[in-house]
Amino acid sequence: MVAKAAKKPAAKKSARAPKMVYSFGGGKADGKAGMKNLLGGKGANLAEMASLGVPVPPGFTITTDVCTAYYANKRAYPKGLDDQVKKAMAKVETIMDQKFGDAKNPLLMSVRSGARMSMPGMMETVLNVGLTSKTIPGMIEKTGGNERFVYDAYRRLMTMYSDVVMEKAAGVEPKTEHDAVRHKLESELSRVKKAKGCELDTDLTADDLKKLCDTYKKIIKSTLGKEFPDDAWEQLWGGVGAVFQSWMGKRAIAYRKIEGIPQEWGTAVNVQSMVFGNMGDSSATGVAFTRNPATGENWFYGEWLINAQGEDVVAGTRTPYALNKKIKNDENKQYKSLEEAMPKLYKELVAIRNRLEKHYSDMQDLEFTIQEGRLWMLQTRTGKRTGAAALKIAVDMCNSKMISQTEAIGRVKPSQLDELLHPMVDMVEEKKHSAIAAGLPAGPGGGVGKIVFNPERAEEQGGKGEKVILVREETSPEDVHGMHASEAILTARGGMTSHAALVARGWGKCCIVGCKALEIDYAKRQMTVNGKVYKEGDIITLNGTTGKIYEGALPLIVIDPAKNKDLATFLGWCDKARKLGVRTNADSPADAKQARLFGAEGIGLCRTEHMFFDPERIIHVREMILATDDAERRTAVMKLLPYQKKDFLGILEAMKGLPVTIRLLDPPLHEFVGSLLEDEKALQDVAKATGKPVSAIKARIEALHEFNPMLGHRGCRLGIAYSAITEMQARAILEATAELTKKKVKVLPEIMVPLVGNVKELANQKAIIMEVAKEVKAKYNLKKLDFMVGTMIEVPRGALTADEVAQEAQFFSFGTNDLTQMGCGFSRDDSGGFLPLYVEMGIYPADPFQSIDQDGVGQLMEIGVKKGRKTRPALKCGICGEHGGDPSSIHFCHKIGLNYVSCSPFRVPIARLAAAQAAIANK
Amino acid sequence: MVAKAAKKPAAKKSARAPKMVYSFGGGKADGKAGMKNLLGGKGANLAEMASLGVPVPPGFTITTDVCTAYYANKRAYPKGLDDQVKKAMAKVETIMDQKFGDAKNPLLMSVRSGARMSMPGMMETVLNVGLTSKTIPGMIEKTGGNERFVYDAYRRLMTMYSDVVMEKAAGVEPKTEHDAVRHKLESELSRVKKAKGCELDTDLTADDLKKLCDTYKKIIKSTLGKEFPDDAWEQLWGGVGAVFQSWMGKRAIAYRKIEGIPQEWGTAVNVQSMVFGNMGDSSATGVAFTRNPATGENWFYGEWLINAQGEDVVAGTRTPYALNKKIKNDENKQYKSLEEAMPKLYKELVAIRNRLEKHYSDMQDLEFTIQEGRLWMLQTRTGKRTGAAALKIAVDMCNSKMISQTEAIGRVKPSQLDELLHPMVDMVEEKKHSAIAAGLPAGPGGGVGKIVFNPERAEEQGGKGEKVILVREETSPEDVHGMHASEAILTARGGMTSHAALVARGWGKCCIVGCKALEIDYAKRQMTVNGKVYKEGDIITLNGTTGKIYEGALPLIVIDPAKNKDLATFLGWCDKARKLGVRTNADSPADAKQARLFGAEGIGLCRTEHMFFDPERIIHVREMILATDDAERRTAVMKLLPYQKKDFLGILEAMKGLPVTIRLLDPPLHEFVGSLLEDEKALQDVAKATGKPVSAIKARIEALHEFNPMLGHRGCRLGIAYSAITEMQARAILEATAELTKKKVKVLPEIMVPLVGNVKELANQKAIIMEVAKEVKAKYNLKKLDFMVGTMIEVPRGALTADEVAQEAQFFSFGTNDLTQMGCGFSRDDSGGFLPLYVEMGIYPADPFQSIDQDGVGQLMEIGVKKGRKTRPALKCGICGEHGGDPSSIHFCHKIGLNYVSCSPFRVPIARLAAAQAAIANK
Repeated sequence: MVAKAAKKPAAKKSARAPKMVYSFGGGKADGKAGMKNLLGGKGANLAEMASLGVPVPPGFTITTDVCTAYYANKRAYPKGLDDQVKKAMAKVETIMDQKFGDAKNPLLMSVRSGARMSMPGMMETVLNVGLTSKTIPGMIEKTGGNERFVYDAYRRLMTMYSDVVMEKAAGVEPKTEHDAVRHKLESELSRVKKAKGCELDTDLTADDLKKLCDTYKKIIKSTLGKEFPDDAWEQLWGGVGAVFQSWMGKRAIAYRKIEGIPQEWGTAVNVQSMVFGNMGDSSATGVAFTRNPATGENWFYGEWLINAQGEDVVAGTRTPYALNKKIKNDENKQYKSLEEAMPKLYKELVAIRNRLEKHYSDMQDLEFTIQEGRLWMLQTRTGKRTGAAALKIAVDMCNSKMISQTEAIGRVKPSQLDELLHPMVDMVEEKKHSAIAAGLPAGPGGGVGKIVFNPERAEEQGGKGEKVILVREETSPEDVHGMHASEAILTARGGMTSHAALVARGWGKCCIVGCKALEIDYAKRQMTVNGKVYKEGDIITLNGTTGKIYEGALPLIVIDPAKNKDLATFLGWCDKARKLGVRTNADSPADAKQARLFGAEGIGLCRTEHMFFDPERIIHVREMILATDDAERRTAVMKLLPYQKKDFLGILEAMKGLPVTIRLLDPPLHEFVGSLLEDEKALQDVAKATGKPVSAIKARIEALHEFNPMLGHRGCRLGIAYSAITEMQARAILEATAELTKKKVKVLPEIMVPLVGNVKELANQKAIIMEVAKEVKAKYNLKKLDFMVGTMIEVPRGALTADEVAQEAQFFSFGTNDLTQMGCGFSRDDSGGFLPLYVEMGIYPADPFQSIDQDGVGQLMEIGVKKGRKTRPALKCGICGEHGGDPSSIHFCHKIGLNYVSCSPFRVPIARLAAAQAAIANK
Repeated sequence: MVAKAAKKPAAKKSARAPKMVYSFGGGKADGKAGMKNLLGGKGANLAEMASLGVPVPPGFTITTDVCTAYYANKRAYPKGLDDQVKKAMAKVETIMDQKFGDAKNPLLMSVRSGARMSMPGMMETVLNVGLTSKTIPGMIEKTGGNERFVYDAYRRLMTMYSDVVMEKAAGVEPKTEHDAVRHKLESELSRVKKAKGCELDTDLTADDLKKLCDTYKKIIKSTLGKEFPDDAWEQLWGGVGAVFQSWMGKRAIAYRKIEGIPQEWGTAVNVQSMVFGNMGDSSATGVAFTRNPATGENWFYGEWLINAQGEDVVAGTRTPYALNKKIKNDENKQYKSLEEAMPKLYKELVAIRNRLEKHYSDMQDLEFTIQEGRLWMLQTRTGKRTGAAALKIAVDMCNSKMISQTEAIGRVKPSQLDELLHPMVDMVEEKKHSAIAAGLPAGPGGGVGKIVFNPERAEEQGGKGEKVILVREETSPEDVHGMHASEAILTARGGMTSHAALVARGWGKCCIVGCKALEIDYAKRQMTVNGKVYKEGDIITLNGTTGKIYEGALPLIVIDPAKNKDLATFLGWCDKARKLGVRTNADSPADAKQARLFGAEGIGLCRTEHMFFDPERIIHVREMILATDDAERRTAVMKLLPYQKKDFLGILEAMKGLPVTIRLLDPPLHEFVGSLLEDEKALQDVAKATGKPVSAIKARIEALHEFNPMLGHRGCRLGIAYSAITEMQARAILEATAELTKKKVKVLPEIMVPLVGNVKELANQKAIIMEVAKEVKAKYNLKKLDFMVGTMIEVPRGALTADEVAQEAQFFSFGTNDLTQMGCGFSRDDSGGFLPLYVEMGIYPADPFQSIDQDGVGQLMEIGVKKGRKTRPALKCGICGEHGGDPSSIHFCHKIGLNYVSCSPFRVPIARLAAAQAAIANK
């Protein structure tokens, strides 16, 4: 997007022009905090602060409407703006008793952006506007002859202005980054410093800076073909135009896309009188948080620098000092805190801190400047914080009655809670390293360990207490033992719902998948990443929250959620607020117990196929699959009964008193035998066990191959074609139920028939289950056996005919993974070729496998719930797809009236929070 | 199902019992033709005939309600039935002046089934009921001492009765078929004939038969442990019970399942006085059709036998004589026709024929018996007929004002029309041969030719005029030239919608797929079928209508539809009646022209991918796919432009004046390159053409492999990721349009974007097309370019969000193949493992890939049409899936208000008929 320079507005006065400029300062303001849409966050807060009597440098805000009009009108300003700006400037001049562009008593201004939502670093700022050959002498006089200060300010203005206004906003595109004007000016500064043998800018004399300013002017002219403007008002309008231009800059557009900020919002422009923290040792500048943004502790937290401007604190060129004694650290303990250096001003600042936090009822991020002993507040805004801090602040503020429980619930983002539940890579340390590669962030948190390329060795070394990271092309159910023993998992292939991703999330384990840069050589036990070789045993660090991979060990930050009382308190509030139940997806007693600790109210999805991969059992599974007639199949299947029964005894007992939804066998049979074609030994074992020739086994395996296994012979289609499977599974579940019932353990199994698209499929399977139930009741001499039979709604036809399906189903569970695959026609395994592009192009707002496609797949869910409840008003409806742990999907589930969501154990707390937020939002 | 013997009804009289027995005979009847539901087809027609004054042997019908009550009441008869039967019998006795069970003047009765719809051979019959030791002497006396006749009748009664009543209805299950009572009795008959040295039953003397009857009684007693009943009434009730029992017999249940006859309908029982065609040379029996059921010609057509019973005509043990001189054939020309042998009776029969056909306004199937010079009509019913006959009779009857055009349209089944459009295997000859194997009937009609296993050789030999049948494991788009050159296609794998099936149906070519018995050895050029080897060059015959395969050449019957004036007349009537438009699916000018001849009103689906497989082009397609950047891809794609433009010039011109829907590229790219992995030469060619190393090409091909290609990177997802493809295709279509427009040829292209699930996908593709349109208009200096842009609705999400999609789409075409795959979650390529079972189990009433699943997929279509037209009321909606040629699907399309259906050229006439029938049915 090539931007045209903004035209200067017509000076012609228009009596009817709407209010486009809002003044603030001197203890009053035209605007207020509630006017963020019009004034942007910064402008609204400046107005609010001014009204509160907080000392704010006076200024004015040009509204976001002007930005919108500017773009609607081919980048021209609306009529009357010029006039309103002049009037507002006059007010500032009155308050400051200075005059903009005046030779004797010049007023300098800053020009800053300010959108409705903060977009840090995305838009432009110009400081020291108003310094010209005409005003410089007056400025020097005003500062008591501080030439050094004035030329330093002038240098800064020229650097910013030439970059932001004359180059970027004018659409000049430097050929290389060395050709950029800012680069040239900074090189010149370095050159001068080097020539003078000094290290810091402050080491340069007034004369050095004066000369530098002259050189700067020449460089600007030669680089951009234009003179640096020497008129205060021209500078001002240039700055305003640059801010508006920057709203449509590449960086801003990209950021808005990520954050979902609409383009129509526009930005406001804040023009504010300059105050200087660099006017000598009675001047200073600083940034502060009203509470610790990392931990949430209720201490005033911040940094400052004496004789400096704001950018110096942020830029990292000087080590900032601590705001008070309490928060000094190793790096700044030798410097005086503001509390020590300027105790009176510090006290004033603390009072403002208290006033602002109380006023906004939230932790604030403050910017202040002290100019020659006078404190000015430049900004207040809601402070960004870590997950731990968000939780602590919310709980503390609620406990001290600053906010209600409902407000507290709204103060913690589900993603922040996620941080608390996993070891995280230390962000400060992480910034110091470059990632060697990146993949998809499939399992959050951090992991450090030795690379191991094989699940057996991972299990062996992990068993010895070594921290290992399993690195594979992709994983399969047969790798599960090695995955479990590893700290983290890294794969070269697969997407966010690949096997590795699903399993890792289920365990709350750090996992990165689809890292295409990895070239793995299993034979040599090494991988090559962008040309560099990593051997088995080399240590790497994964950041599963971002998908980045680092060489060596980075420090991890671990918070033990079990010991966090605030977490328990907070989730308690969430539980009171929410309507949706929260269950978990768990396939083992261990997972079930873990999930109970996290607050799961039942199991929403217990997959039974994972149980089949145990080495003791897989041979019988394979016998079953390779059987050539029903009798042979039945014999093989029934060998699995004792194992399955033991599984269910464990899980049902672990979840006693809570419902457990058990899904009958789902995957295509090929999954259990496909690997045999590449494993001669296993193939021989099977041949021995079944007494069948290897050639016949191979032929059968090949016959099971499907073109589109996703839509093939799986789900209830298996149980219908091979009824013995359903019979065995039903018997295992119901005998386990009967035995526990006899022992007075209250268990509530819900048998779930998968992939039902037609009520007759369910009727067929239910009949088998009910027949088994009759036999089990007789066998255990029980009058009653508590269980339900329901189905997964995951085929579009199942949702569309839910009224019929509900005639047989006692509950529905939406399998939104498959419903998305079929509803949208996306194979999740193959969507890598187009889905990222679709999200990038905005065809879908988000990956529909991560967040429910509410317009499409959501319609099927709504139809399913409505039609199902038409037939059976009390029909229990839940969701057990991956979406059950996604906050925006949870909101949707609340809206359409589901009874519960089910997610992986580590996402249960997040789901509890999201469900509470959904209930509050829909009140 | 083990049947209990029916209990004899209680004799107690019940005054309130409903009417359960309807009498007929003597010129009047209680019932009439309209009472088929209650009296069954046969009973209603007997009543109707009696009322018409046709000489019908008197009798009575026990209603279907009694059958229902019988099964509802544990196989007991309702109260009062006994009484009503006795009264009805008394009426018969009065008319016949004979008495049932009377020693002196005995009356004999037949007991026959009669359901609402004819179920030929599925249920039981007992004749000669009432012959006992008491009545035999009287019977002998009545027949003037014809002992031979009476004992022959007695033998027949015993054979039928012991089999039907004493064995089958009683639920006795013989261990082997040799233990069945009928087998034993028939063996005895053979033994006696052999011992006497005679060939025919009629050669046996009265004494022989009398002795045989004694032996029969002993065999019955020893086999079934019961005496043959010697009481007339006991025989009668036994017969009635056996008919009711047979309604739930295995054969009847299986038949009902196939024909979709509900079990609740039940059968009636017809008890009718016996008349005998075997009482000497003045007696005879015969069957007749009022018109020729094979050709439809308006000649009285039938066969008769002198001195015989009905079963003799049907059984084939004696060669039946022709009814009249005109229809004598080589086999019966030496025998006198009825016209010659009994001219007076023949005249009487002709009068009855005329009366009945006029009365029923349809061709009738008659049964008659002449007893000692007196004509009796035993049955009249609507005659079954071939497709050719159905058409001719409908047109003739309409032309002679017997029926209206609307009625005529209803008289031809769409499947009968299908017969007319293909060469058919001669059914008479086919019956004499056993099939060597069977597969799925994928392309109807018959085909005879030499086996060829390779498409190149098929093309070569076919090009020389040889008739060849291409036999393959399965076919791919690269085999198309060989398929085209063949008479018929046979594959070992694939389903009804496999490539071979789709292509063959498109061409109206005979095709059998998924014939699992074939073991093909390409290297040896032979196949083994159930152990027998067939070499290339061996001749086989395929019946693509039934799926059967025969060794050698069977004769084919060919009717040229183009020369059939009746067909043109008939379809003209259909066109007047129908509301739905009928288009065709055609990918070439030749197909387009063929379809126009069949009455297509446009092309509903022109697939463009088939055009890519031409050897000249495929290399550029592969270059495009293997391109590593956009520029390279664009260069390769644009090489295809002249070819595609030529394609579209041809097709658009062939369809001038009619709309042509052209679908943009749809299949996953792997389809164009997958075969390279097994074709080293082609791989080298591609390496040469692209300048890429073979290893890189292989890697790219492997990367294109998808787990579920059906849901992968295909359809508009290709055009979105690689916009050059869409641009090239749009340019080819629109430049062809522009050139033809310049030449004053009226063309109406409709550009169809496939696989749209989200309006934004369509918007993206439409923008490219509209941009190209602008350029083309400028290039050709045209003010206007007539074309539309629309989409295929084939993803469930597309249907669900049709209101949004219609904002961009100017038309919808339902792609019901894919909509079924995704809506039901069935991969059509993999459904062989469970879908046949599903249809067998009644989970789906029919294969949803053949006939639209109206409850599920149909809902998506309805939603699509409704929501689409909400946004764009005039939205043109059609269907282009395989279902567009299926009559029941066409009815559904009419019902939901589609504008047109589109089907393969050879199904166009069928669609015209089905559309007319749908319009009539929904009036």
